[in-house]
Amino acid sequence: MTKIRTVVVGASGYIGGEAVRLLLGHPNIDLVAVTGNESAGKRLDEIQPNLRGYSDLVYQKEIPDAEAYVLSLPHGEAMNVVPRLPGKVVDLSGDFRLQDTAAFEKYYKTPHKQPELLKKFAYGIPEINRGRIREAQYVAAGGCFASAAILSLWPLRDLAAGRAIVDGKTGSSGSGIKPGEKTHHPFRTTSFFAYEMFHHRHTPEIEQASGVEVLFQPHSAPLVRGVFTTSYVPLKKDMSGDDLLEVFRQAYSGERFVRLGKGTTNVNNVKGSNFIDLGVAAQGRTAIVFAAIDNLVKGGAGQGIQCLNLMCGLSEDAGLLTPPAQP
Amino acid sequence: MTKIRTVVVGASGYIGGEAVRLLLGHPNIDLVAVTGNESAGKRLDEIQPNLRGYSDLVYQKEIPDAEAYVLSLPHGEAMNVVPRLPGKVVDLSGDFRLQDTAAFEKYYKTPHKQPELLKKFAYGIPEINRGRIREAQYVAAGGCFASAAILSLWPLRDLAAGRAIVDGKTGSSGSGIKPGEKTHHPFRTTSFFAYEMFHHRHTPEIEQASGVEVLFQPHSAPLVRGVFTTSYVPLKKDMSGDDLLEVFRQAYSGERFVRLGKGTTNVNNVKGSNFIDLGVAAQGRTAIVFAAIDNLVKGGAGQGIQCLNLMCGLSEDAGLLTPPAQP
Amino acid sequence: MTKIRTVVVGASGYIGGEAVRLLLGHPNIDLVAVTGNESAGKRLDEIQPNLRGYSDLVYQKEIPDAEAYVLSLPHGEAMNVVPRLPGKVVDLSGDFRLQDTAAFEKYYKTPHKQPELLKKFAYGIPEINRGRIREAQYVAAGGCFASAAILSLWPLRDLAAGRAIVDGKTGSSGSGIKPGEKTHHPFRTTSFFAYEMFHHRHTPEIEQASGVEVLFQPHSAPLVRGVFTTSYVPLKKDMSGDDLLEVFRQAYSGERFVRLGKGTTNVNNVKGSNFIDLGVAAQGRTAIVFAAIDNLVKGGAGQGIQCLNLMCGLSEDAGLLTPPAQP
Amino acid sequence: MTKIRTVVVGASGYIGGEAVRLLLGHPNIDLVAVTGNESAGKRLDEIQPNLRGYSDLVYQKEIPDAEAYVLSLPHGEAMNVVPRLPGKVVDLSGDFRLQDTAAFEKYYKTPHKQPELLKKFAYGIPEINRGRIREAQYVAAGGCFASAAILSLWPLRDLAAGRAIVDGKTGSSGSGIKPGEKTHHPFRTTSFFAYEMFHHRHTPEIEQASGVEVLFQPHSAPLVRGVFTTSYVPLKKDMSGDDLLEVFRQAYSGERFVRLGKGTTNVNNVKGSNFIDLGVAAQGRTAIVFAAIDNLVKGGAGQGIQCLNLMCGLSEDAGLLTPPAQP
Repeated sequence: MTKIRTVVVGASGYIGGEAVRLLLGHPNIDLVAVTGNESAGKRLDEIQPNLRGYSDLVYQKEIPDAEAYVLSLPHGEAMNVVPRLPGKVVDLSGDFRLQDTAAFEKYYKTPHKQPELLKKFAYGIPEINRGRIREAQYVAAGGCFASAAILSLWPLRDLAAGRAIVDGKTGSSGSGIKPGEKTHHPFRTTSFFAYEMFHHRHTPEIEQASGVEVLFQPHSAPLVRGVFTTSYVPLKKDMSGDDLLEVFRQAYSGERFVRLGKGTTNVNNVKGSNFIDLGVAAQGRTAIVFAAIDNLVKGGAGQGIQCLNLMCGLSEDAGLLTPPAQP
Repeated sequence: MTKIRTVVVGASGYIGGEAVRLLLGHPNIDLVAVTGNESAGKRLDEIQPNLRGYSDLVYQKEIPDAEAYVLSLPHGEAMNVVPRLPGKVVDLSGDFRLQDTAAFEKYYKTPHKQPELLKKFAYGIPEINRGRIREAQYVAAGGCFASAAILSLWPLRDLAAGRAIVDGKTGSSGSGIKPGEKTHHPFRTTSFFAYEMFHHRHTPEIEQASGVEVLFQPHSAPLVRGVFTTSYVPLKKDMSGDDLLEVFRQAYSGERFVRLGKGTTNVNNVKGSNFIDLGVAAQGRTAIVFAAIDNLVKGGAGQGIQCLNLMCGLSEDAGLLTPPAQP
Repeated sequence: MTKIRTVVVGASGYIGGEAVRLLLGHPNIDLVAVTGNESAGKRLDEIQPNLRGYSDLVYQKEIPDAEAYVLSLPHGEAMNVVPRLPGKVVDLSGDFRLQDTAAFEKYYKTPHKQPELLKKFAYGIPEINRGRIREAQYVAAGGCFASAAILSLWPLRDLAAGRAIVDGKTGSSGSGIKPGEKTHHPFRTTSFFAYEMFHHRHTPEIEQASGVEVLFQPHSAPLVRGVFTTSYVPLKKDMSGDDLLEVFRQAYSGERFVRLGKGTTNVNNVKGSNFIDLGVAAQGRTAIVFAAIDNLVKGGAGQGIQCLNLMCGLSEDAGLLTPPAQP
Repeated sequence: MTKIRTVVVGASGYIGGEAVRLLLGHPNIDLVAVTGNESAGKRLDEIQPNLRGYSDLVYQKEIPDAEAYVLSLPHGEAMNVVPRLPGKVVDLSGDFRLQDTAAFEKYYKTPHKQPELLKKFAYGIPEINRGRIREAQYVAAGGCFASAAILSLWPLRDLAAGRAIVDGKTGSSGSGIKPGEKTHHPFRTTSFFAYEMFHHRHTPEIEQASGVEVLFQPHSAPLVRGVFTTSYVPLKKDMSGDDLLEVFRQAYSGERFVRLGKGTTNVNNVKGSNFIDLGVAAQGRTAIVFAAIDNLVKGGAGQGIQCLNLMCGLSEDAGLLTPPAQP
């Protein structure tokens, strides 16, 4: 089988870099170019010294023609780039996740420049939208917090009796590769704090895709990798933990990247991998769902490649099955 | 003024050690002895090398007579020790926090051996119970998670429209000085996980002291020091963040160890200190209260000493005002 | 090609677990069993929840017959096990690394029980001993600190004018999966300390394999993964950094797992991988060589598999080329 | 006794902030102003939220008249400021540490603008220069790495048989409060690397003050606070660890901030404090000296205040005796 010629656009950051790392080990994809504005002209391994010995690619400024594109650009930039790309596109930014342009404008503080194009995008979480992703030319892969929360809530969309509370915790890599105050090592190592009360961008995304109304509150933890969400869901009827587990088992039967259990879960078990580990607990009319993902993989590049595999008719897990490590 | 002759009982662990550290710098207290079962016969600085040069104390097995005692024993042991102590007692364990012995039995899995003694104990969070603490011979200082949650909820006890959800996060020092799987460095450094679903011991303590019903869910974060709680409270009426802040200002007017603000807060700002930093946010009929404490100080030894100061007629903040450090 | 039926003996710890992880992704090896004393009867993913979904193996107490064995047992146990194994053996412990039984006895505080067997072992660092490893039935893979130091010093064995000083730093995973005081998260996170002055076991191993006399001093750093060594080597003549780099380039020409450069290097770039990243600097008659490895891979399981590949006539890098990640 | 009116110049960074923290708790000093260029007009606790509740000071741009000044400015700026200050000055930068202007120019890459003023500066490590500090109007407090190394080597100045190798390791707070690539949390947390081969600025400072020639090689560790140095010293004669300890005991007899022992030491025991913990080991004609300090205290603000106490006729340990904490 010939490999699919693919470009990672915006390959200098953590999620773009993770896309590169995964595609370099992908059996059916040929990574033909990486682009980056500030990195243009530099060798891949100058920006990502971990990848020394794997590729001779040099960052380009211009995006060459290819069959497929993984876009890892800052929010607001993907919508400028997508229209001129000839192949299939997986966008890892927030530009095409919200179908409601009013919600987009409210949460991203800017009008959407491509409302027509938006309609052509499938939302990219395969476990809940596989059919549309398979047919799509354009896919907007789910966000990090959003993916954890959506996969926690979606099986409960008909059982939820009202608004769920989603308490999210993220590692520092979620803030990207650019140094900043909140990711300064002396500060972050001993910090735990909340941010963006009542207005995080993933709120409408979670509601749109899960069908459950939410109050979403994110926090920063002194992890590097990992998103953990705790979802508190009011139920229409009394349920036990076993009942709940059965609901999730049916919802995610056969899913390669969903690992289910009763009780808690841990970001430690998924780091570097495309898994989402879900744990459930219930008492009376309250369910608690715990979700752990690697924000750069299942919450970023990995999920994008999972979508790309579907779009290209490849095995959905191609390139995504390297076992995660302990410790 | 003569100093109060004080003993720290169970001074080998983190909270006992913190009591020692704080009392060594206390202007009105004379630390006359430290006790420890396994440490008996060792010099203080063999177990706490940080304190080398501050004291020649040697751990004793027997508890000598004194005017005051700070007890930092494992749960279940303090109730055996208190009856034979001649002076004032601050207990940092959970033995005497719950006035309801049925709740004690349910959450601590053992009958209470001293139900009569229990009635003589005042609950030790000065900001909500100062009067009783001042008069008491015995005080049960509030637990770490409990203190953060109670001080978050108490001002809202008449405004809450139902059960609050308290999502708690703790650093590893909360598990004590004994090494274990969950605090093994290679594991904990990259972990975030929940534990004790629907049955953590601090649940009845929070409800008893705050007057608000709660669903409390604790999590382990890769911090060393710090407890952070996020409390989601349904309100009887619409409130703004400013309204909420005003409620808290009135509730904690003049409190030396409560620092209030709108929005988030951070465990980073309180480490090593007796402060609780509270942040508030509100939208419609939902309040969110963020609380940050050092679990070993305001959630442990510091709060105990704050109580002891009151019990002894000392300045409430004596020995507790060393400024916390950044970073 | 049929796959080589392989057993990991002692698969419950970090290095054994890493061997399992790598072999599960190895194209030419069939992992047929894992053994463990305390883990016997448990599923692999009970001990290694990261590996859930990859294998149905259950820990066995007895070692079944197979074509190849990777041994990850505590020091002193491998020598009891090797004689009864029918196939090829890679031992990851220290039991068969030192050819000098007097040195073994001095550093391991016990007489060697299998001095005859010892002679059949090849020392397992392929970059310096590939020929013998290829022919061997038994290989003793190099230790973590030792591998970093040996690959730093070996190219200089004819240039060194005397004893080198090797200042080593290790992450906490080097102490294994059993919790202990020195790897307790609250302690280790803010610690940096030295240990084993003038008598670390890797000293004679480094000297035997590198041909350079050393003073080796190990330290514990608050990393999880990673060994970093700084080797100070007195030279017989003045050399520049470029001269030194050229020496190393010739020594390691064509080596897939050695990445060379001038100046420093970083454990961050090799985590999870089998690379050793070496950096060199020189001034006058002093060379400094920096080495960074993942102690569980190039300093443990990865190097063992690299040896096994050679012993089995496989591609030396089979199963070892997953790109390391950033961050 | 009236308090000494003191200003911290450049109080927005970590070392300046630490000076503020320590002076706020100092019994004999009145902190009358803090200055900062970018912070001017902001309240102290906007930049240092840890200090909320301790002071109403607002950052000023201009430096007011006072009796004493602690300067925590970037290298190169103190020399512009000192000439116009009317009182005693402790400079925490590198501007006045090197008496040899040629060495200054070589290591700081700029000519010294105040060579005459330089002569008036005493070098500020009290344990080796107390007499001159007491008499001085101007003191240049020793640098972080330099202080650890100098106090390790100075007792051996007559015993050393040649050049010592000093392998240094520092936490991220040593890089200051400005975020940067090397202190970005996702990067630093899993990094260990060397930097500045053969030309770190503390090299001439160590040699000038200790009287021992050194090769100094610094490294970055994933600590927040702490400098640890390992000094390898060739001796003129065979010595045992006990011999060495006796040499150090005599050298530092009566020193309040030096804690001595045989064997290793740990940065964990000194964090937040002005102690230097020294450990010694010896074999044949080689000594190893381990030193642990808090880089912001004994390697920064604390040492500066220790000097200021001497200059002002105060108790040398005033304001510096808060016991360090564990964990």
